Amino acid sequence: MKLIEDQRKIARAWFEKLRDEICSVFETIEDTVKGGDEIMAISPGRFKRKNWERPEGLEEGGGGVTSIMNGRVFEKVGVNVSTVFGEFSEQFRASVPGAKEDPRFWASGISLVAHPRSPHVPIAHMNSRMIVTTKQWFGGGGDLTPIFPIEQDTREFHKALKLACDAHNKEYYPKFTKWCDEYFYLPHRNETRGVGGIFYDNLDTKNWEADLAFTRDVGISFKNAYSDIVNRRMNEEWSDEDKYVQLIKRGRYVEFNLIHDRGTKFGLMTNGNTEAILMSLPPIAAWP
Amino acid sequence: MKLIEDQRKIARAWFEKLRDEICSVFETIEDTVKGGDEIMAISPGRFKRKNWERPEGLEEGGGGVTSIMNGRVFEKVGVNVSTVFGEFSEQFRASVPGAKEDPRFWASGISLVAHPRSPHVPIAHMNSRMIVTTKQWFGGGGDLTPIFPIEQDTREFHKALKLACDAHNKEYYPKFTKWCDEYFYLPHRNETRGVGGIFYDNLDTKNWEADLAFTRDVGISFKNAYSDIVNRRMNEEWSDEDKYVQLIKRGRYVEFNLIHDRGTKFGLMTNGNTEAILMSLPPIAAWP
Repeated sequence: MKLIEDQRKIARAWFEKLRDEICSVFETIEDTVKGGDEIMAISPGRFKRKNWERPEGLEEGGGGVTSIMNGRVFEKVGVNVSTVFGEFSEQFRASVPGAKEDPRFWASGISLVAHPRSPHVPIAHMNSRMIVTTKQWFGGGGDLTPIFPIEQDTREFHKALKLACDAHNKEYYPKFTKWCDEYFYLPHRNETRGVGGIFYDNLDTKNWEADLAFTRDVGISFKNAYSDIVNRRMNEEWSDEDKYVQLIKRGRYVEFNLIHDRGTKFGLMTNGNTEAILMSLPPIAAWP
Repeated sequence: MKLIEDQRKIARAWFEKLRDEICSVFETIEDTVKGGDEIMAISPGRFKRKNWERPEGLEEGGGGVTSIMNGRVFEKVGVNVSTVFGEFSEQFRASVPGAKEDPRFWASGISLVAHPRSPHVPIAHMNSRMIVTTKQWFGGGGDLTPIFPIEQDTREFHKALKLACDAHNKEYYPKFTKWCDEYFYLPHRNETRGVGGIFYDNLDTKNWEADLAFTRDVGISFKNAYSDIVNRRMNEEWSDEDKYVQLIKRGRYVEFNLIHDRGTKFGLMTNGNTEAILMSLPPIAAWP
């Protein structure tokens, strides 16, 4: 078993590598789209990176890099990697595993939200993280929010994530897809955020290499499965009516992220980097 | 002193009368605007009313009426009146005055949010309510969120509310305008929602007639002061750049309402009418 310092370096390096790979794939998509006039009039997007640092404090530090692209296929896509450490304040110690004994933490992760221009291309979200307190674990997942769900896309997305899960543990997919459905739910609308995917947290099998390998496979599967869907749908034409339906669906996405999402809430309450946290919000949204 | 049943009827009737007056003034504005082509191409708006009822429960009931208009001056404006009663669940009893002793409550009120089409016309919010538990009180206020603050508008809006306050108690305006600034603040953005106004809660001077009269004056002052600003600014031309700045400011408005606003949180957590609660959200908003 690797020393914890090595584990941190390895996990962090993976999240940054995954970020690089995803950005590269998405930029290629920007170059290869052959859509209607609406899309082709826009320049192919390129990710812009921006470093941020946590404000200097007695026992906290770290920071991250946001990568944002406003392109022709991806109207707005944000990928954030961050590695932060510090001490949990009193109010969080009870709810974070292992933080009651010692409030210090270390966390590294990647999170991505893609808002495609076309209402025929689903919104997508992916996240992986490694957290260390007196315990240590992985969490993450990926999920899809189509405006007009297409059975083939939903099936293939789930199939890819199931394959990644099954290679590690046959119990993962059923458990994690259920978790995803329960988590990405808007009670006040009585509707799900999208068509699901997987969501997992507190994963610690006591085999760190295996848990990282799983987290890695989820990231790669997401990247491949989502790119396939984007490539399949991005050249389709759409109507103004379709676009308006998309803006309304994006409004629901905003509602979920600001009212319910734990990561968003946690980030804002712990003085996280607002720009990085709210990178998930759509370029434009509607409430009729 | 009037019996509590009469007081409830009188307060409720006032909130509904204020709604009628505001709707009438706003519809007149829709008819009289002489703006650019952008505005005049749209039909003058008319409020559409919709009744809603609280789901039948053992000890709860009531409902309300939403009035929404999508017009040419008012891209979206919602006015909600509601009168509801029931029992507070365990989680709210500690935080609501007088509810610890007896969880039953009665509440009636009006709330309004106006999102003008023109970025030169400020967003406005107004609210009045009477609450009865084992205690009883009034709350409410009004505040302005200009996209491009104009000193004259801010000054006259505050002046009107100050006059309404001063007629009742010289201590009201300084106290309530400070309360407003503190309440409508986005800590994660380190910015205020707008240019303030007044905000008050738990108002019970033991003279119910006086407290209602104050609440009434606040409503009337808001109506007059805001209409004056709308009339003064609505015929100005604006650029696409101005409009985009407006959409971003509206995004901040969404953030405040979904992350911080107590009424919104409270409503959604107590299974309130989602459509009525989220009527405050803008027709379209942006996050660049």
